[in-house]
Amino acid sequence: MVNVAILGFGVVGSGVAEVLSGNAGQIGRKAAESIRLKYILDVREFPDSPFADKFVKDFSVIEGDPDVDIVVETIGGVRAAKDFTERALKAGKSVVTSNKELVATHGYDLLRLAEEHGASYLFEASVGGGIPIIRPLNQCLAANEIEEIVGILNGTTNYILTRMIRAGLSFEDALKEAQHNGYAEQDPTADIEGHDACRKICILSSLAFGRHIYPSQVPTEGITGVTLADVAYAASGACKIKLLGRCIRRDDGKLYVYVAPHLVPDENPLSGVEDVFNAITVKGNAVGDVMFYGRGAGKLPTASAVVADVMDVAQHRRDRNSLRWGPGDPEAVVPAAGLASPWYVRTQAPAERVREVFGAVKALSRPGAQAGESAFVTSAMDQNALEEKLAALGAGSAKMRVLE
Amino acid sequence: MVNVAILGFGVVGSGVAEVLSGNAGQIGRKAAESIRLKYILDVREFPDSPFADKFVKDFSVIEGDPDVDIVVETIGGVRAAKDFTERALKAGKSVVTSNKELVATHGYDLLRLAEEHGASYLFEASVGGGIPIIRPLNQCLAANEIEEIVGILNGTTNYILTRMIRAGLSFEDALKEAQHNGYAEQDPTADIEGHDACRKICILSSLAFGRHIYPSQVPTEGITGVTLADVAYAASGACKIKLLGRCIRRDDGKLYVYVAPHLVPDENPLSGVEDVFNAITVKGNAVGDVMFYGRGAGKLPTASAVVADVMDVAQHRRDRNSLRWGPGDPEAVVPAAGLASPWYVRTQAPAERVREVFGAVKALSRPGAQAGESAFVTSAMDQNALEEKLAALGAGSAKMRVLE
Repeated sequence: MVNVAILGFGVVGSGVAEVLSGNAGQIGRKAAESIRLKYILDVREFPDSPFADKFVKDFSVIEGDPDVDIVVETIGGVRAAKDFTERALKAGKSVVTSNKELVATHGYDLLRLAEEHGASYLFEASVGGGIPIIRPLNQCLAANEIEEIVGILNGTTNYILTRMIRAGLSFEDALKEAQHNGYAEQDPTADIEGHDACRKICILSSLAFGRHIYPSQVPTEGITGVTLADVAYAASGACKIKLLGRCIRRDDGKLYVYVAPHLVPDENPLSGVEDVFNAITVKGNAVGDVMFYGRGAGKLPTASAVVADVMDVAQHRRDRNSLRWGPGDPEAVVPAAGLASPWYVRTQAPAERVREVFGAVKALSRPGAQAGESAFVTSAMDQNALEEKLAALGAGSAKMRVLE
Repeated sequence: MVNVAILGFGVVGSGVAEVLSGNAGQIGRKAAESIRLKYILDVREFPDSPFADKFVKDFSVIEGDPDVDIVVETIGGVRAAKDFTERALKAGKSVVTSNKELVATHGYDLLRLAEEHGASYLFEASVGGGIPIIRPLNQCLAANEIEEIVGILNGTTNYILTRMIRAGLSFEDALKEAQHNGYAEQDPTADIEGHDACRKICILSSLAFGRHIYPSQVPTEGITGVTLADVAYAASGACKIKLLGRCIRRDDGKLYVYVAPHLVPDENPLSGVEDVFNAITVKGNAVGDVMFYGRGAGKLPTASAVVADVMDVAQHRRDRNSLRWGPGDPEAVVPAAGLASPWYVRTQAPAERVREVFGAVKALSRPGAQAGESAFVTSAMDQNALEEKLAALGAGSAKMRVLE
């Protein structure tokens, strides 16, 4: 018998309680030990909940109960969540979480704390919601040197971009629609500015490359600058605009890590990932490209990943399935500006001037283009070379990388 | 220190040796214990191999060496492979394999034998080559009741279909090209008749639904009947023809399992899976649809999955990561003909007769259609209803299911 306490009865926390009870049959068949929900910590009252008898308001009840083996942290943020996670681990309880901010910011310290106290700290649900990615990356691809991770890691921005591409909505209107449908929060900053995607690429990079990569090391650009003109130009070049988190290992082992909107060619499977779906491509030196695809958020998908981690802890009480990475290293990450790629450029500079400065480019077009506006794709160059050329153009310009 | 013996130095076996030595650094960082290749069993001579000092010709050397912890079986087939697997398991050694025929045919017995002798029997590489699917299905999606598995499980046939669709090659010419490129064997029967896909859907179904599903329980149709006319009609309906292995759980828990070519609508992510790539979609009651995509075969991708299993055994010597399913049950699988779906039909019957028999259908078209030929998509019906209507049409007809 394994006893579980859920911290925070919000969307994910209540989903975990639902999956544990609703799929108890399946879970019992798969897990070696039966799993019992013993406590739910929340300051609010839920008198009508089927789990009403499990609520407590004081974490120390959970902390001090030696029967609690696993704590599910679905509080979010880095304050109470961090405090309770540390106290649970110090009490020898394993912690399972969907909290990407906490893992991206304090993952190394918490993983070490878990190891010191013979506990596990697992977070399959922190990236890609219900899509299996943390465990496959850590176990199934373990025999590979990972060369690159690139993914559509945020469902909200992918929904907004899809509506701009498919329905011709402006960014502002697509955002409003996403909020109306519950796909975006009232304060959408963390999504549209790329912070959420940044946390997720930090977690994946740390796991794949063995060093904690902090959000502060990752240049992050969101999608607020993407216009319908860019969407139309991209279409003329058989591309779709997608917000990507990327981590690329250089031959010397240093990493480029960044988040930015890209033009993704239609032949790349990532270009077909629409609406709130996420997809993550991992390139290993033996396996080549593998892609993982599914709903990147949502109550039950995310809860199902949390419960899978709970089952994992229950099954491996002696040989723990630890995730593990080393401390951060300012030298491990090099400026992403140094990564060479083709670039999409939209500018007011005349075509002759573009040719003089950039040489041969691939011209793009759109219906209803403003007079004097042009757009094109350059040959591969790093960002410094691009910025020099854009300065030489001497006219306002927008730019995005093109995924190769 | 964990000692490994590889049985069979063919494509996959030699790839396993290469990955173990080439990625030793990565493997050492990830695995708790160091992994040493001690023996390679092959009747052939490889005097110039870098592994020349490891070759043995007699399995009893491996069987009798108590230092050997893990046996990698990459012989293929069900004769020597089965004998050696049984003997290794009985000697308490764990066995890792890419042999889908052996797992699909004798998986239940071998898993039970492994359990009896405290050993593991793992086969991540048996489905989807290097694509992580067995472990994610068994662990990451463990909290879900699985409702359906559908996949492009065979790279050879997907290559042939892609060349028919993209280059307009006939089936025969596309097969020749695949053989020329090393994607199809000189005897391509197991691929083009669907037997390979059948073995893989058997393995996935057994794992997901907990009962051994035998190839003999699975109606299997290959792609030899697919014509360029079908490809063109499918295109006019915004579909691509794909060979799919499917397993669907009915509400009463019984399973439809079958392999057949389908029309796959362009909006389904499976339709964009081209060339030798594989993709598997799993529908769970909590997670919804998740898809796994990558190279379904090839020396290093497959070898990397084998080595990941070896690392798993090395890391879990106390709490074994067992795969497990129950014995076969003739009642568990119901005739796939009972599954209702829309159907693609190509026929010589006149349009009026089609309307009389089928009612409203979605008409398809193709350039250069023969006089009197027509094609259409029906409403959803089971195969018996379809066959009755086709008989009533009274004219030669070809048919395929349409994936919904």
